[in-house]
Amino acid sequence: MSKVLIIGAGGVGTVVAHKVAKNEIFTDIMLASRTKSKCDQIAAAVGGNRIQTAQVDADRVEELVALMRSFQPDIVINVALPYQDLTIMDACLECGVNYLDTANYEPKDEAHFEYSWQWAYQDRFKEKGLTAILGCGFDPGVSAIFTAYAAKHHFDEIQYLDIVDCNAGNHGKAFATNFNPEINIREITQNGRYYENGQWIKTGPLEIHNSLTYPNIGKRDSYLLYHEELESLVKNFPTIKRARFWMTFGQEYLTHLRVIQDIGMARIDEVEYNGMKIVPLQFLKAVLPDPKSLGANYHGQTSIGCRIRGIKDGKERTYYIYNNCDHEQAYKETGTQAVSYTTGVPAALGAAMFARGLWKGAGVYNVEQFDPDPFLAELGEQGLPWVEKFDIDLEV
Amino acid sequence: MSKVLIIGAGGVGTVVAHKVAKNEIFTDIMLASRTKSKCDQIAAAVGGNRIQTAQVDADRVEELVALMRSFQPDIVINVALPYQDLTIMDACLECGVNYLDTANYEPKDEAHFEYSWQWAYQDRFKEKGLTAILGCGFDPGVSAIFTAYAAKHHFDEIQYLDIVDCNAGNHGKAFATNFNPEINIREITQNGRYYENGQWIKTGPLEIHNSLTYPNIGKRDSYLLYHEELESLVKNFPTIKRARFWMTFGQEYLTHLRVIQDIGMARIDEVEYNGMKIVPLQFLKAVLPDPKSLGANYHGQTSIGCRIRGIKDGKERTYYIYNNCDHEQAYKETGTQAVSYTTGVPAALGAAMFARGLWKGAGVYNVEQFDPDPFLAELGEQGLPWVEKFDIDLEV
Repeated sequence: MSKVLIIGAGGVGTVVAHKVAKNEIFTDIMLASRTKSKCDQIAAAVGGNRIQTAQVDADRVEELVALMRSFQPDIVINVALPYQDLTIMDACLECGVNYLDTANYEPKDEAHFEYSWQWAYQDRFKEKGLTAILGCGFDPGVSAIFTAYAAKHHFDEIQYLDIVDCNAGNHGKAFATNFNPEINIREITQNGRYYENGQWIKTGPLEIHNSLTYPNIGKRDSYLLYHEELESLVKNFPTIKRARFWMTFGQEYLTHLRVIQDIGMARIDEVEYNGMKIVPLQFLKAVLPDPKSLGANYHGQTSIGCRIRGIKDGKERTYYIYNNCDHEQAYKETGTQAVSYTTGVPAALGAAMFARGLWKGAGVYNVEQFDPDPFLAELGEQGLPWVEKFDIDLEV
Repeated sequence: MSKVLIIGAGGVGTVVAHKVAKNEIFTDIMLASRTKSKCDQIAAAVGGNRIQTAQVDADRVEELVALMRSFQPDIVINVALPYQDLTIMDACLECGVNYLDTANYEPKDEAHFEYSWQWAYQDRFKEKGLTAILGCGFDPGVSAIFTAYAAKHHFDEIQYLDIVDCNAGNHGKAFATNFNPEINIREITQNGRYYENGQWIKTGPLEIHNSLTYPNIGKRDSYLLYHEELESLVKNFPTIKRARFWMTFGQEYLTHLRVIQDIGMARIDEVEYNGMKIVPLQFLKAVLPDPKSLGANYHGQTSIGCRIRGIKDGKERTYYIYNNCDHEQAYKETGTQAVSYTTGVPAALGAAMFARGLWKGAGVYNVEQFDPDPFLAELGEQGLPWVEKFDIDLEV
């Protein structure tokens, strides 16, 4: 018996709404976003009058507070923009509502990806007896739960962790980004970073790369990026000597991104045009295909997992745990492609873990701090089956 | 003793103004464009009160007529946009003024590059006893005069003509176009075309390419394009069996153009953005570096010429005539780079040929129909020295 408020009606919000609606633990569901008509469309697609909708500007705490006061949810699932994490957390504190998100806070004017802003809410959530669950998508999210599962069952000491994220899908367009192109371009153009022997080592943007083999997919160029779950994982698993994150990009994709920067269309400052002030990257977003429109013709799979080396019973062992997700199947079920699907399913399942009292505690938590077993026991039937391999060549 | 009206205050207009001002045959000079302040800047740079300025919208015949009636020029040098050739020719006919341009008319909504529109003015110019000189830049322009010179002095029969245009300059920017990016992108994305055995043969855009060696530069990838002087040259030199035009592009430049198309920024239709209607290519033009701004750090040379094979005294011979122009030197003299310089110098010299009665005749003429000797005798001292080579490997 739980009331849930979902904020955000993009691809991920669509998946969360579908999955939450199927779960009887959620008795009342509200979907809210800046544009109510988007929420109405999703609610209609889910059907059965399961979902109420509302308009809310997630940048404005007072609007969020008014909505929470009237709907009185037990938990908010925040799948809005990462710029909006803090306003939503503020409103949760004010209204006594628990909180879950899939991506950490990032200021609007620079690409940061650090937990410090949200970890700073620890005492306030604790004092109010509320739970905030950070980063419960796939990566961050399942990637950290996989790591916790490995630590609990297969290792005495995790020493080397490589999170590997491959999208081998093909959407048939010359160029398109899989989610908000602004966030996508920011992520890729920032410096890389990884953890080794207690230190963070900085790299140039996409400086380090490697050809890695993904199950059912094959070899793909994989680039070392900084990704937010590295920050919490090395803190929560202090035996880790080295932690890295790899993501695949095709040469064509990277060429397009480079040119977009060269020609000035990735600029986030205003440009004078016929007396108007226009941010080039915002205008580009209006010209590029809408990420939500990619689903219909998206073929192929994603493959995301953890490759781990460490010690068990005094011996070194290797371990690879991953999920492959099919774009077409994801689209058939929810009307969105696998990149949104793999983020939305864990968010809905994490909220269910909380609603059922399987994940609990006052304060701010990263998902690897909870018991991974009940989550992973259900993840497969929720649409994201996972596979384990032992003592193989990790390539990394 | 001649009065000249220059229309157009871009890079080419700047060069024409500088060169015309140095020539005593031009007693009165007026420079006019849509933005009078640009004309004033150029006039100030030339100095000595040599140049008057005026505002005119070259899309509007009545404005052009009013300006010509008040200034009463003997000849107009049209270095405005190719969209505006016909309105300017109309005004010349109405006011009894002779005409010279550097690029043939092209409708605004499609890339055409055909002389038919302007050749249709033949009878009207003839009846009024006026001269219209078409395509008196470098290519078209000097390229056709080189061909006429070859036909006059070195060949009984020109059989194979390859016009080769190399820009080996480096402006130090990741990407920029050398002139109006809109025209530049249109030219390159259209189909290629060349003449062979009485027929025009169509190719895909940039489908045919070849590595050609340019003097003082070396090997450069050169792409077969359609270029307007081919149309008049095969008509005026009917012994020609094959005529082609080649232009160099670096891989990086082509990659940038391809991506600009892929991401939709080359679109010339309107896109909805925050309630405004914006043409992506027009917005891109506002974000890209202004071609006029490239001059300051432009290094390297251009090399444009004609490679000809044919018969002289019953024997086959080969011939290469070309000019190399240095970006830095062009900038030092006129404040613009070599691409504008090589177009503006021939326009000013062509107008001087007319003013001195060396080129004359009532009607519409392409430059190869005049005597090439007096023009080429002066071209070197005007800043574009040329070189001849005989009986060499033409590579084409």
